[in-house]
Parts: sequence; structure tokens; C-alpha cells
Amino acid sequence: MTLSIFSSTSPHLEASNLTAFAQNGLERQSEHRDEDSLKRALSVEGAHLLAFAGDKLILKHDGQVLDPLFAPYELAELKPDFENAVLLGFQPSGEPRIAVPILSAVEDLASHFKPTDARSLYRDELIGEELLGEVAQGVSLIHWNADNRFCGRCGGRSESRSGGYKRVCTACEHAIFPRTDPVVIMLTIDEENDRVLLGRSPRFPEGMYSCLAGFVEPGETMESAVRRETLEESGIAVGRVAYHATQPWPMPHSLMIGCFSEALSRDIVIDDLELEDCRWFTRAEVRAMVDMTAADGRSAPLKGAIAHRLMIDWLDWPA
Amino acid sequence: MTLSIFSSTSPHLEASNLTAFAQNGLERQSEHRDEDSLKRALSVEGAHLLAFAGDKLILKHDGQVLDPLFAPYELAELKPDFENAVLLGFQPSGEPRIAVPILSAVEDLASHFKPTDARSLYRDELIGEELLGEVAQGVSLIHWNADNRFCGRCGGRSESRSGGYKRVCTACEHAIFPRTDPVVIMLTIDEENDRVLLGRSPRFPEGMYSCLAGFVEPGETMESAVRRETLEESGIAVGRVAYHATQPWPMPHSLMIGCFSEALSRDIVIDDLELEDCRWFTRAEVRAMVDMTAADGRSAPLKGAIAHRLMIDWLDWPA
Repeated sequence: MTLSIFSSTSPHLEASNLTAFAQNGLERQSEHRDEDSLKRALSVEGAHLLAFAGDKLILKHDGQVLDPLFAPYELAELKPDFENAVLLGFQPSGEPRIAVPILSAVEDLASHFKPTDARSLYRDELIGEELLGEVAQGVSLIHWNADNRFCGRCGGRSESRSGGYKRVCTACEHAIFPRTDPVVIMLTIDEENDRVLLGRSPRFPEGMYSCLAGFVEPGETMESAVRRETLEESGIAVGRVAYHATQPWPMPHSLMIGCFSEALSRDIVIDDLELEDCRWFTRAEVRAMVDMTAADGRSAPLKGAIAHRLMIDWLDWPA
Repeated sequence: MTLSIFSSTSPHLEASNLTAFAQNGLERQSEHRDEDSLKRALSVEGAHLLAFAGDKLILKHDGQVLDPLFAPYELAELKPDFENAVLLGFQPSGEPRIAVPILSAVEDLASHFKPTDARSLYRDELIGEELLGEVAQGVSLIHWNADNRFCGRCGGRSESRSGGYKRVCTACEHAIFPRTDPVVIMLTIDEENDRVLLGRSPRFPEGMYSCLAGFVEPGETMESAVRRETLEESGIAVGRVAYHATQPWPMPHSLMIGCFSEALSRDIVIDDLELEDCRWFTRAEVRAMVDMTAADGRSAPLKGAIAHRLMIDWLDWPA
């Protein structure tokens, strides 16, 4: 047996492709964004728009179906802010997809418009997987543009450029680009005792336990961030770290980096600023949690969450 | 043979630990940063400071050695800006390490102070590996603080908090946190013909070829970013993607994510906005480039660069 540099997984079965928000079939044409890209895209017959009130996607509700796709003329009553719209990309057919923030207040919207956050869209399966991926991209970029209306260097007003992928200060010309925050999320495995480390934040739904996680800080590798966060939150020392999958997480613009990590110690010391509980779970316990059959009511994050993926892929690992 | 979830690599030999800027032994105590952390650290006997003029580290040069570590009293003549200093962390001995921006102009510095950028520190091996890791952390955080003196939401003045890991607007109280930009960098392999894809940006030193690379965009997985960037820059379709290593890259605050990727096509179409050349290289050609023995003068990025790591680890893969 030779060790291939690649696992035997085909792209369609790769773990990243099995997470929520990861399916996004748009062709971004990132090298060809210029000052006219957005205007050109808006003028294309058949262009469809996603409308956002803050981080919430507006769904049209006709009594039967929920539809997030607006034709340009349908947006008028929502006061679209085209100055801060974002060209997400193009369907294989050439149809442009554009994210547009609206200026109407949520409380002034007609009742057939339903503002819905990305978490609910995913949890309640309100739209298809590909649209969910486009919404993730849209939320992140709309949020970033809204958070950067002024220049961080001089306080001057900034303007959107390159189809929403750049902002330039009107006073000092300082240019900034969209932000994506890498977060490590890790399933730490005690191989000797065949169990894994899970914790509970006080912000979680009742009974839910998940993988520990934290932002990668400037000047860290992925592996050093996994070791630091695990040690700080649980007191557990980590040895080897194996990358498993990534997931775009639009709350508001994170990149979740999912890893397996090897426990080198066993005694947990909880950081009670972050966690209200942290403990080892056996294979049978984790199976019951992901299957939602745990007698004690404990549960895992929902299907599609990268923590769920890490748990079921550990359970199913061909050992 | 069972397939372990972990490769057989021990943490000290993991590819990420063999890249420049990755060695950083500081204990960050990230969960315990508060409004007094920096002040407390500055008052500790034996605290050492790294001084930055913009993105440049100040080295003290006594005619023989280059020393980047300042005692607090040594900084006075450089006009230290302690309001925007950053507590990097603590040595195992408990000694704090603090990054401090200076207000003196570079051209006004006495001749025994040498402002040096992170790239030169690494290329010319001017300081040890652990210090290089601390400098990477320092540059990124000093740069981020300097780029965010004003609030992006309202244009108000912001203030540093939590030891330099948070800025809060004095007008609207909007809080922001340090930024780290994930970048994918990939060695694309044509397995059938045992060769790899490398390109040349017009900004590279003469003769240098490297892996293709690009920022991960909001709403992408690592794997989808690898496929998009490779397709856009070279026209090559990518199938499987394997994570290899990460590297902190302080120009100014990136996280390089190094991958191997599988070529599904062979015909290159160069994006001439980004690259001035892009071609396939055989195993013998890559070996000569990393060994600096190529008769045509072509070369690889320097040892310590993650692209160099990807090349030599491909050459040495046990196939």
C-alpha cells in the first residue's frame, strides 16, 4: 500500500461539502471584479437579488411558498441601497446573483415579507442548500460593508468598490477588503478510553453539548490555536491535530476549521468564564446525542453543523 | 492496518511547526485579558518590550549583536505609545512580552536603532525562531490597531482594550476584535505525469516560482477556495484537496493554509492580471529549484516559506 498525498475521498463526499452553508455553486469571477461589475450585473435581464435587512434575509411569503429571490422591480418598495449592494457571482446560466441591503425598517415591512436570520434558515430548512450557501456569502459581505462605512485610519467616509469586495476612503484613499475570521473547532479524543471531550456554553440551547472552539489569533498556526483553546477552556493538553473540514459560518463572517485532536491528559479544569460544563463522553453517549435518543435529554448540534460532522465522522471512523 | 484519525506525525514534526513565524512559545492567557492586563504586565520586573515603527521592528545594534528586546526605560527616547501597546503573552518564566508602537519617525532614530521589516528578519535570519514568532504576532496586532483608530460604523474615535485585543468606539461603543485573513496556498499535482503547477507573479524576485495562492472569501470552504483560485489563475480544474500545514504570515495579518490539490486537467490558461508565467514542473526541476542548483536560474521560495514546505514534502512523500 502506498500512502497517497490525497485521501480516497472524492470532492463530492469531502467533509467540508457535507456541512451547511458550504454548497454555493456561483462562479465568483473574483479576478474580474471592477468598478462597473455591479452596474453591468444589475442590468442583465433575469438577474436575481437577495435582500437583507441587517443580517436578516427577506423571504417573500405568498401564503404557500417562501421565496428569497427578488427581481429588481420587486425591491422598490423596500428602499434598496444599491450603493452598498454586493455582486455575489453568476449561475452557470450566466444569471447574476446580487445581495442588496434595504433601508426600510423591519417593523415597516408588509406582512408578506419575512425577515429571517441565517441560523433559522438553516435550522428550519427554509431554503435549499445552494441558496443557503449564497445567503452565507451575502450576509457576510453585507455585514462587513455595513461595519465599515467609515475609514478606520482617518474616520473619513468610505465607498463601496469592485462589486462590494473593496471599500475605499473618500478622504485618505485607504482601501480595505472583506474580512473572514478563522475559528478552530475541535473534537478532542481520548483514544485510550475511546471517549471525546465536549462542553456547554451557557448560551447553548438546553441540554446541548458541542466541540470546544475559539478564534485563531494573529501569529498562530491552526494546530497551535487548537492546543491553546483546548488547554485554556478545559485544562486538557493536546498532542496531534488532524484537519477534517471547513464550514462558512455567517454569524457574521467566520470560517470554521474543524479538527480532530489527541488528548494527552485526562483531568478537566473548566474555564467557567466560557463554559458551564465540560466532560468526557463515551461512544454510546455521543451516538445517542447525535441520534437525539439520549435518555438524559443531552443533545449534539444539528445536522449540518461542523461539530455534528466531527462527532458522526469520529463514530463512523474505520478503526 | 487500522486507519488512525491522526497521521503518525508528532507535534514537533508537524508541517506547520516547520514553517517560519510558527514558533511562538508565549502563553497568551487569552481568556484572562482584561482592562488591567497590560498595565499589570508593564509593571512586572523583567518585562521585555518589542518596539515597532509601523510594521518595522526596531533592533538595537551595539556594533556586534542585534537585539530586539527593550527594557521599559530603554524605550523612552523612542516616544512609546503605551495607549496602543499589545500584551503578547508570557514566557514560561512568567516574564511578560509586550509590543509597543513608537511615535518617533524612522528618519529621526539614532543610528544604533535599526527598523527592520518581518520579511527581512526571516530572510536574513536576524533573530531566533521563537522571537520571530513573537514578532509575527506583534506586527499583526500593532498593524490592526493602527488601521482601526476610528470606528467603521460611526467614524468615532476608538480606544484599545483587553491588552490590545479589542477596540471600542468612544461614541457608539461598537467593539471590534483582531483580524486574521485566511489565504489558501496550494501545490497542484498532476499525478499521472508526476509534475506540479507553479506560477510567477511580476512582484516576485527574478527567477522565483511559487505555489498559486489567494484569499479565502466569505462563504467559501477551504477546498472551494483552492478550486476557485486555481481555476481562475491557471485554468486548471482541481479535484481532491488535502490540508498540509498553516503558517502565520505577518504581511500584515494572514493565516496561510497550505494544501496539496489534485489536477483534473492539464491545459494552462494564465490569468495575466495576476501571473506573468505559470507552468508544470517535473520532480527533477522542483528538486533543483529548492536546492538552488537550477541551471536556468529558476528558484523556489526560501526555506521556512510554506510554499517551500509544500514542495519539499511533495518531493519526499513516501509514494
